[in-house]
Amino acid sequence: MNDFRRAFIVSDRTGISAENMAGALLEQFPNVKIRQYLRPFIDSETKAIDLIKEIQAFYDKDGVQPIVFASISNDEISHLVQTAPALHLSFFDAFLGVLEQELGTRAQHFTRSRVNNVERYDARMEAVNFALNHDDGSSDVDMKEADVILMGVSRSGKTPTCLYLALQYGIRAANYPLTPDDLGNPELPRMVKPYKNKLFGLTIEPERLHHIRQERRANSTYSHINTCKQEVADAQAMFRRYSIPFANTTHKSVEELAVHIMQECKLKRKF
Amino acid sequence: MNDFRRAFIVSDRTGISAENMAGALLEQFPNVKIRQYLRPFIDSETKAIDLIKEIQAFYDKDGVQPIVFASISNDEISHLVQTAPALHLSFFDAFLGVLEQELGTRAQHFTRSRVNNVERYDARMEAVNFALNHDDGSSDVDMKEADVILMGVSRSGKTPTCLYLALQYGIRAANYPLTPDDLGNPELPRMVKPYKNKLFGLTIEPERLHHIRQERRANSTYSHINTCKQEVADAQAMFRRYSIPFANTTHKSVEELAVHIMQECKLKRKF
Repeated sequence: MNDFRRAFIVSDRTGISAENMAGALLEQFPNVKIRQYLRPFIDSETKAIDLIKEIQAFYDKDGVQPIVFASISNDEISHLVQTAPALHLSFFDAFLGVLEQELGTRAQHFTRSRVNNVERYDARMEAVNFALNHDDGSSDVDMKEADVILMGVSRSGKTPTCLYLALQYGIRAANYPLTPDDLGNPELPRMVKPYKNKLFGLTIEPERLHHIRQERRANSTYSHINTCKQEVADAQAMFRRYSIPFANTTHKSVEELAVHIMQECKLKRKF
Repeated sequence: MNDFRRAFIVSDRTGISAENMAGALLEQFPNVKIRQYLRPFIDSETKAIDLIKEIQAFYDKDGVQPIVFASISNDEISHLVQTAPALHLSFFDAFLGVLEQELGTRAQHFTRSRVNNVERYDARMEAVNFALNHDDGSSDVDMKEADVILMGVSRSGKTPTCLYLALQYGIRAANYPLTPDDLGNPELPRMVKPYKNKLFGLTIEPERLHHIRQERRANSTYSHINTCKQEVADAQAMFRRYSIPFANTTHKSVEELAVHIMQECKLKRKF
């Protein structure tokens, strides 16, 4: 018998919802080894039948049924997939009926239309371009158009966070790197001073910063642990002095940081 | 009575899973207006009690119970939240018991540890830096280190797709813009020729391209509809000539494109 279980993520769209759900559930079983198979865009009978054959073959080989995490809104395809020898976990099946009852109306039971994709694309594209054009404080002309300005020392995680905010939520996030000059100054940096209410600080553990900077410029003053300690301490002092909300990026994922920033700065997603 | 329903997305972490699930379910009810309240990081009794009060207040005011989409792995917090007057939809409650039975082991019932965040951060950061450094074919030295190279005419959607692949999956995605020179040449562009097996093409409807380019450089040859038609036709001809897989970005979201590319190019997520 295998020392792992097979899990299929099945969807008639991208499978991102089902993948998230599977991830959240399976990480509750840290001792179970899982081999994961992503099967997105199962949107026709032919594809469903191929999938069923694949699952059947694994079942025959392993003698153990795979687990299927499904997000299929089309009823026929969903029922078809459920004939495969597997444990089927489908949040549509679990919740759609309850929701229909509560809302007093029938669900449409088909894949969502893509009507809003163009608007979404535009909002996203604009936000991504904004983040790229305002990376590392390279321009202040449009700082006033930013929804939020992330501030932190070099390599504290500003860029990926800005990009994530742009891609996921359409938020225009600029970022401003705190230089040693800024940190030695008791005032807020000139460029961000007019936008105090949009500022959010990022901080990081000095040891981690040291490690990241070593990768970039080994054995330099820039990457020295004492420099890192001093810069981080100065940055945090600045955030406290001006009551700028801030978060430590060391033990947070980009997702967590982004959601945290959205909350703290009361930002609304653009799509 | 309100003409909308209130939906709470509640999680002891970011709420991204619950938000995805809620989105997938609620879009099956296009005629129901929803007012959505994101409540992430509900990871203490105090926060749970504040939330319950908030839900209670809405219930008292509306006379209709809100809907709660929950993703809370901590049992005590989850049970506490369930005392709020609402329709509770929780995929942990729906599936964790079934999974425990199937896997023959207890779930840990608490929020996942953040052990892997540093590795994840590194993989992400590396991929994001890679995408930024290889945007618009600005460097070919490391083209060989790319996991995938997206190729398409200017403004066909390469940059956001590369960034999304980097952030979500840690994929090192380079991109190469097809210039009019490239398109007039029967050969593959010199820079990407050695990496034919990593190429993925992006195409777009000429009308949409025209619209996007107009925003950038109005009434230019670059944005003229005939230029757009010609470039798109030439690019598609090139993709077909060299059997390069490609996708049309016009009606696809960045998520859909990314998943499609992962599948076509058999890429594996890095975390």
